Amino acid sequence: MAISMYSASVPIFLRMLGNMTAWLDKAEAHAVQKKFDPQVYLAARLAPDMLPFTKQVQIACDAAKFCVARLAGTEAPKFEDDETTLAQLRDRIHKTADYVRSVPAARIDGSDDRDITVPRRDGAMTMRGEAYLKHFVLPTFFFHTTTVYALLRHSGVDLGKTDYLGSLVSAPQ
Amino acid sequence: MAISMYSASVPIFLRMLGNMTAWLDKAEAHAVQKKFDPQVYLAARLAPDMLPFTKQVQIACDAAKFCVARLAGTEAPKFEDDETTLAQLRDRIHKTADYVRSVPAARIDGSDDRDITVPRRDGAMTMRGEAYLKHFVLPTFFFHTTTVYALLRHSGVDLGKTDYLGSLVSAPQ
Repeated sequence: MAISMYSASVPIFLRMLGNMTAWLDKAEAHAVQKKFDPQVYLAARLAPDMLPFTKQVQIACDAAKFCVARLAGTEAPKFEDDETTLAQLRDRIHKTADYVRSVPAARIDGSDDRDITVPRRDGAMTMRGEAYLKHFVLPTFFFHTTTVYALLRHSGVDLGKTDYLGSLVSAPQ
Repeated sequence: MAISMYSASVPIFLRMLGNMTAWLDKAEAHAVQKKFDPQVYLAARLAPDMLPFTKQVQIACDAAKFCVARLAGTEAPKFEDDETTLAQLRDRIHKTADYVRSVPAARIDGSDDRDITVPRRDGAMTMRGEAYLKHFVLPTFFFHTTTVYALLRHSGVDLGKTDYLGSLVSAPQ
């Protein structure tokens, strides 16, 4: 099988969303063990002018959701950004993965050359599907997942490379 | 043009390596302005048991270098991990980009199904080329580039989303 727009996007999202869920599980266990309220994580920031933990999770999810919807030429489901607990953030990740999983590969394959328009505060931007995936979505998705991970490491949660990457032993496709 | 193993790897590396160079330039200017030694950045860590800034830059570079070499079935050039200044780290990024640029697309395209073996402390791991790129290289590359960025943000360097992603106005391919 040759790499395709579907295979270069959806499996990456699903795998990292799954990994991120496991980090939240470990974060919760850490809070219980150290006897602090797990909601403390939600406001954590790496710098005062960077977005807090909750936003990092939400934006990582949205990067995956909007990528799949835009490449497939469909409307993404709207998720309210109203999560206030770790459990609700886990639900957000699950809902995102369910949606990403629901879009057929055939809708996404062939989107390499399709024009994708991204609304942004400073005006809409149009890129080819492949450039959109490679230079906008993937860096954005990994930026926010890595920041979630870094905030938990910074908070003392016992995470390592295997948690970040997920198990590679059963070589995923 | 359809996405390929070359187009899904090398352009991503070259673009982010270029962005990272620009972050180091801004970091140096910030140190000069605030009158501190730019070498202070090199030991910065997000958590006491995370690798310092210098290592983050080196590993980001190596993720790109080894990916290209392994997919192409060639030997990667050896770079000593002996950088002790920002200028030397910038050189490391340039050397890496030069090498990544030097490998012909035809050597990398078609590596989707090739077996790639990665030496690791806990034993070598073999994956298909596509899985290696998607689930090992890209998460690793973006983990370390994002951590470099986060350490500079944490140190007060004035960086934003446009610095992280690079300009998207002239829609790259």
